[in-house]
Amino acid sequence: MSIPCPTLRRDGDRVVILDQTRLPWQEVFVPLDSLSDAAAAIRDMQVRGAPLIGATAAFGIALALRDDASDAALQAADACLRATRPTAVNLHWALDRMQDALRALPAAARRAAAWNAAEAIRAGDAAANAAIGRHGLAVLQPLAAAATRPLQLMTHCNAGWLATCGHGTALAPIYAAHAAGLDLHVWVSETRPRNQGLLTAWELARAGVPHTLVADNAAGWLIAEGRVDAVITGADRIAANGDSANKVGTYLKALAARAHGVPFYIAAPRSTIDFGCPDGRAIPIEERSADEVRLIHGIADTAGGAPLCVRIAADATAACNPAFDVTPAALLDGIICEFGVFPATALAAVAQR
Amino acid sequence: MSIPCPTLRRDGDRVVILDQTRLPWQEVFVPLDSLSDAAAAIRDMQVRGAPLIGATAAFGIALALRDDASDAALQAADACLRATRPTAVNLHWALDRMQDALRALPAAARRAAAWNAAEAIRAGDAAANAAIGRHGLAVLQPLAAAATRPLQLMTHCNAGWLATCGHGTALAPIYAAHAAGLDLHVWVSETRPRNQGLLTAWELARAGVPHTLVADNAAGWLIAEGRVDAVITGADRIAANGDSANKVGTYLKALAARAHGVPFYIAAPRSTIDFGCPDGRAIPIEERSADEVRLIHGIADTAGGAPLCVRIAADATAACNPAFDVTPAALLDGIICEFGVFPATALAAVAQR
Repeated sequence: MSIPCPTLRRDGDRVVILDQTRLPWQEVFVPLDSLSDAAAAIRDMQVRGAPLIGATAAFGIALALRDDASDAALQAADACLRATRPTAVNLHWALDRMQDALRALPAAARRAAAWNAAEAIRAGDAAANAAIGRHGLAVLQPLAAAATRPLQLMTHCNAGWLATCGHGTALAPIYAAHAAGLDLHVWVSETRPRNQGLLTAWELARAGVPHTLVADNAAGWLIAEGRVDAVITGADRIAANGDSANKVGTYLKALAARAHGVPFYIAAPRSTIDFGCPDGRAIPIEERSADEVRLIHGIADTAGGAPLCVRIAADATAACNPAFDVTPAALLDGIICEFGVFPATALAAVAQR
Repeated sequence: MSIPCPTLRRDGDRVVILDQTRLPWQEVFVPLDSLSDAAAAIRDMQVRGAPLIGATAAFGIALALRDDASDAALQAADACLRATRPTAVNLHWALDRMQDALRALPAAARRAAAWNAAEAIRAGDAAANAAIGRHGLAVLQPLAAAATRPLQLMTHCNAGWLATCGHGTALAPIYAAHAAGLDLHVWVSETRPRNQGLLTAWELARAGVPHTLVADNAAGWLIAEGRVDAVITGADRIAANGDSANKVGTYLKALAARAHGVPFYIAAPRSTIDFGCPDGRAIPIEERSADEVRLIHGIADTAGGAPLCVRIAADATAACNPAFDVTPAALLDGIICEFGVFPATALAAVAQR
C-alpha cells in the first residue's frame, strides 16, 4: 500500500499537516507557520498518534528557530512543546533528539540543522513503521495458518498511517498481511470519546482491508464468542518494565483477551519505550476536557450535510475524561518494534539497540 | 425520593408511556392504543429496561384484547410481543403470567382481567424495586462505613426508575443510600451505542445524587486507580447458574472489577432469573441495527437547539451491534433481588420463592 497522503510534510519554510479533527468527513491540509501553530496542532489533536506527535514537535522546533535561533529561543520552544501533551513519550524523545542535534551548534547553523534533524525523525519513523510491519507479519502468518476462516484481528484507537509518518504501528502488520495476501478482517473499536476508530475505519476502507466498526463495549462479547484471534494496538508510552499506556479502553480489551486466551500485542517504535520510567504507575495520564465526553462530531444525517458538533450531555453534567490507561506488561503477549518482537517483561534487550 | 413521572400508566382504555428515545432532551408522553403500538414501543426502545419491557408487554396484551378477546387474539398478541426483543426474559415472564391469568377465562371475562393482571405486574415490579433498594442499602452501608471519602459506585446503562415501574433495580440501592444520608458518588458509564448512561445521569441529577459521566472506555482506568468501591448494574436475563446478560460492556467492567478486588453486584427482580436457561451460552444475544453504531442523537450545540440525529460513520461502514453481553457468575459478588442478596452461584434458593 502506498500512503494516500502525508500526515505531515515540509513545504519551504513551513509545515503542512492533514487536519485530523476534520476526518473522516473532510480532507483539509493546514499550514503550520510558527511554534504556536505546531503546539496548538498537537494540543488540539489536529495531529495525533504518539509517533506523529513526536515528528510534529521536531518540526515545531524548526519553525521556532526560523526567526530566532538563539539558545533562549531553542529552550523556550522545547518547553512549550513538551507541555502540550503529557502521556506520549515520543514527544520527549523527539525533543531530546532535537536538543542533541542543535544545542552545541552556533545559532547561525541551527536553522538548517533543525530542518534536517526533524526530517531525520520523520524518515526514521517511516522506516520503523516498515520494520514493524515486517515483524508483525511474521506474528500474524502462523495465526492465519491456524485459522479456519479469515484471521480476525481487533484494534483500538488509530495507530495507522494517520498516527505516524509511515504505514502506522498497529496497522503496519495488518497492511503488510493484506499486501501478502492473508485473508483477514479487522474489528475496529469506536474509541470514545474522540472516535479515533472512525479514522481507522476510514484508513482500512481506503486500503481495501475488510473491517467492521463496533462500539467499544462490544469487545468483551466478541472476544468471549471466539470471534477475535488477536488484538493489536499502538502505545503512547511503554515503561521499562513493559507496562504500556495507550488510548483509554485498551486495558479493558487486554483483560478480555487474557480471560479468553487471545494474544494481545502492542506495536510501537523504540521511541515509545521510556527506559527512565520504571513502571505504569509512573506514567502521567492526561485528563482532557469534559467537553470531549459531552460533545460529538458528525454530519447531519442528510446527504451532503456539513460536519457539525452535537451535544449529547448537558453542559451541567460533570464528566471525567482520562485519555489513556495502562495495560500491565503481564497481559501483553509481545511488543512489536522495529527491532523485532520482544516479551513485554524483557525490554532490556531493546535498550541496547 | 418520589418518582418524577411514571414510565407507564393506564389511561382509560389506553396506556401512556414516557418516550425514552427523546430523553434527556424532551419529556414526551406517547399513548399506546393498540397491540402494534405496544410492540413497536418495545422494539424501538421508547420503553426499555427489562422490567419495564415486561410490564409494557403485559399492557400490550390488555390493549390487544380490547377489540377481540378470543383465544386466537390472545395467542397472536402473545406471539407478537414475544418476538419484539430476544434477550430480556422479563418479557416472557410477564407474558407467561398474563397467559396464566387469562387462558382459562371465558373471552367475555378476559378484558377486565387483562388490565388487572397487567396492573398487578406493574405494582409487583414497583414493590420488588423497593425491596431491592432495602437489601442493596444493607450491602452499601458497610462499604460506606469503610470508605474514607464518599462511597464511589459505578453503574452501566440505565437500571433506574426509567427502566422499571418503580425506583429501579441497580439505582434503587443508590437512591435508598442517598435517602439514608450516605455520602456517595456515582460513575455513570455512557453506554454506547444507545447512550443510556445519559438517562442515568439525567435521573441522578433530578434526584440530587452526585455523579460523573465517563466514556465506557474509562472504566478500567477508574477501577485500576482505586476510584471505584463497588459496581452495580441491572440484568436482562440471569441464567440458572448465575451467568448474567446485561447491556453490552457490562462484562468488561466485571473483568476490571475482579482484577482489582472491587465487588460487582447485579440488582434485578426474581422475574429476570430464567431457571429454564442453564447458563450464559443459552441466553440469546440480540444484535440490533448497525445504524445504532453509525448514528447518534443529540442537540445542536447552541442554546435551545432541537434534538437531531448525526451520522458519525459513513453508511458504507460495516458495523456490528450486539446489545448485550454475558458476565459469568464467577465474576459476580452477589445478586440483589427482592428476596435478599444471593450468591450468583446459588440461585436455587430464589427458585423456591
